[in-house]
Amino acid sequence: MSGRSKITLDESELPRRWYNVIPDLPAPPPPPLHPATRQPIGPDDLAPLFPMELIRQEMSGERYIEIPDEVRDVYRLWRPTPLFRARRLERALRTPARIYYKYEGGSPAGSHKPNTAVPQAFYNAAEGTRRLTTETGAGQWGSALAFACAQYGIDCEAWMVRASYDQKPHRRTLMHVWGATVHPSPSAVTAAGAKILADHPDSPGSLGIAISEAVEVAAENPDTKYALGSVLNHVLLHQTVIGEEALAQFDAAGERLPDMIIGCTGGGSNFAGLVFPFLREKLAGRTDPVFRAVEPAACPSFTRGRYGYDHGDTAGFTPLMKMHTLGHDFIPDPVHAGGLRYHGMSPLLSHMYELGMFEAVTKNQLECFASAVTFARAEGILPAPEPAHAIAAVIDEARHCTETGEEKVLLTALCGHGHFDMTAYERYLSGEMGDFELPQDRIDTALAGLPDIG
Amino acid sequence: MSGRSKITLDESELPRRWYNVIPDLPAPPPPPLHPATRQPIGPDDLAPLFPMELIRQEMSGERYIEIPDEVRDVYRLWRPTPLFRARRLERALRTPARIYYKYEGGSPAGSHKPNTAVPQAFYNAAEGTRRLTTETGAGQWGSALAFACAQYGIDCEAWMVRASYDQKPHRRTLMHVWGATVHPSPSAVTAAGAKILADHPDSPGSLGIAISEAVEVAAENPDTKYALGSVLNHVLLHQTVIGEEALAQFDAAGERLPDMIIGCTGGGSNFAGLVFPFLREKLAGRTDPVFRAVEPAACPSFTRGRYGYDHGDTAGFTPLMKMHTLGHDFIPDPVHAGGLRYHGMSPLLSHMYELGMFEAVTKNQLECFASAVTFARAEGILPAPEPAHAIAAVIDEARHCTETGEEKVLLTALCGHGHFDMTAYERYLSGEMGDFELPQDRIDTALAGLPDIG
Repeated sequence: MSGRSKITLDESELPRRWYNVIPDLPAPPPPPLHPATRQPIGPDDLAPLFPMELIRQEMSGERYIEIPDEVRDVYRLWRPTPLFRARRLERALRTPARIYYKYEGGSPAGSHKPNTAVPQAFYNAAEGTRRLTTETGAGQWGSALAFACAQYGIDCEAWMVRASYDQKPHRRTLMHVWGATVHPSPSAVTAAGAKILADHPDSPGSLGIAISEAVEVAAENPDTKYALGSVLNHVLLHQTVIGEEALAQFDAAGERLPDMIIGCTGGGSNFAGLVFPFLREKLAGRTDPVFRAVEPAACPSFTRGRYGYDHGDTAGFTPLMKMHTLGHDFIPDPVHAGGLRYHGMSPLLSHMYELGMFEAVTKNQLECFASAVTFARAEGILPAPEPAHAIAAVIDEARHCTETGEEKVLLTALCGHGHFDMTAYERYLSGEMGDFELPQDRIDTALAGLPDIG
Repeated sequence: MSGRSKITLDESELPRRWYNVIPDLPAPPPPPLHPATRQPIGPDDLAPLFPMELIRQEMSGERYIEIPDEVRDVYRLWRPTPLFRARRLERALRTPARIYYKYEGGSPAGSHKPNTAVPQAFYNAAEGTRRLTTETGAGQWGSALAFACAQYGIDCEAWMVRASYDQKPHRRTLMHVWGATVHPSPSAVTAAGAKILADHPDSPGSLGIAISEAVEVAAENPDTKYALGSVLNHVLLHQTVIGEEALAQFDAAGERLPDMIIGCTGGGSNFAGLVFPFLREKLAGRTDPVFRAVEPAACPSFTRGRYGYDHGDTAGFTPLMKMHTLGHDFIPDPVHAGGLRYHGMSPLLSHMYELGMFEAVTKNQLECFASAVTFARAEGILPAPEPAHAIAAVIDEARHCTETGEEKVLLTALCGHGHFDMTAYERYLSGEMGDFELPQDRIDTALAGLPDIG
């Protein structure tokens, strides 16, 4: 191992293809079902919402898919991203573990989300889409898509959960800077939103409602399509640039491949992007790491949800997907990691979890912020609340190594910075932040609303 | 010229020394004077405020000063920084000019300020300083110093101009995350602050007042010293890593050296850091660029100030420096580019401006924000309001090239991101932002308060 603490790759080493894990799995994931017929959906069912190339990628059995030059050209604004060895954090923890983090916060939108926003905007523009609709919670995904649409000259229209729209205006402004239109959700612009407003004029909104609104507008306008920032196969596919670069960086550093890879999971795209290329190497017998997903205790899809078919949205417009879910009516407590507050989980990752291919743990909010502050004081970079979950689990494992003396190599993805989460940090530092209890009956009630499908 | 749009350097190409321009000048800059005796100051006069190594650098006649390994080790967290070619901006402007920008916003604190905060904290820690005091306006400098002090385990105590302390809490929170103590200024903690509060309990504060408070505490406590984020020679020296890296990157890109280099100026450290290494090459006859400083129309030290001796602070604690100044009582209008709102200017740059070594222009706030939005939509990165001044001047020159057909090579430093300036962007986008007039009598009144020296 060399003495380097930052391992960079040259622009020429930017990955040329995305890795599709599906053909390497021992069994294919169950198909999505049409919400009305409950029959497996085909490409035509998705055509009102997505361009054909993305539908092809969603259903592809090819191991590798070429990244278009026009996409790599935009990736180059911030990719390849650096892999850091957290030497100062190691010293602070007095651990013999070697801790690495792949930093995705250097993208214009400040997270890993542009890795998929850019190709989604590109394929839509190439197939004649004039406008993309989407939902966004705290705004990470909405701002990533606004940036991507600006790169290819198409319009972006986002429905932002009203509570965030009102209380977290900065990412909304970022979307405005990049030229997007932003509606608070529920909005009077859509039938789905208007119906909810009629019953609940003061509704704070939810991701499920915002998805319904964005899907409705896309379905009704031929020049408009819809974009989703996580959960779907093609989204996870696009994020594999993270893991592919990390593999090359471990090689460049002369370091052995990690013993454990830890990532936070909301819809699953950040975790999948980091893990899938290493999983390929594991399936080929070249390495044998433990993969550990970390989810918020307030929204524990893997660890306390049910594996079954559920809707992705509140109104039931989306296909039914077999996934770990807390129920599409489940409203998570308002933890600051807005990007992890989704009732469901990637169907692909859910399938792999059932196959025992990785493990999952939960973390409470306060421990995550404590870990993030420890990290920031040692390493400088301020983590977003979402990757703070992964950092908390990394610190756990590093402390375990302090006790056992094991020189484990740990890897995580620092998938975004916390520059737009300063109010949350101030609440934590001033002692105003608390943890939430999630009683089992709240989960049971939400799961009772699941559709009754095998 | 290759087709690359991002030119990176390997960690091994991080500069090993800072460049001191002073021995290459045709005449040395006038000395600072003791505020009481009005005689040139010596090292002992500065010893209560700065460690000896920084005093040595402040007065050094050596062309190069080695960067300690312990400093380069922290620099590696974000350095070398990327040099971008702004191809998308060029297309948007339909200009034949080739536009390059050196991006310093990837540092943990989000600006170029850590380039000097880190060595200042290091030398202080090495000489036994337990605590560093400083002033900060909008918080760029305070957060950079808080980060740097956390790296070497010393305390940081910052006096933050009260108007910003109350209205811009996010960088204050960033300082807290890194473990710093932050006081609103004027504060009751110091005699200088208490005196002002007694007369003006609702004082919004100013940089000049905050400097007086930080200097007072450092002067009175043997284990405490003071740190300044711009203006002084050693600060400009540390920033030359920007220009040194840029020189290497032009070479790596196979591009000819720039025809024009444009930077914003508040105290001058960002401009000097970019320009000095290119100036060295110019003095050696290897290139002949135009250097253009851009200052806010609301605080035009070069273009409308006087070149004469003035205090750096309100209370008159600092040495008298010969510089372009609007008078130490001048309070600039509240433009959002808080980092450019200083009544004075680097004495070294002021001397060089008098020698005709570069030119200066002003930009109004609205034009800067319009240029920043044009830049963000094309290039993705959201600029801070300070470098937006330089971007406005770059766009001017690029449009001039569109008219003339000249294929000029332009270079600027994008010295920080705008993630903590979203309220300003929202004001701009909603049409609520205005420009300020600066009548000559306001400048004349402030200049009447200058001490009567040569």
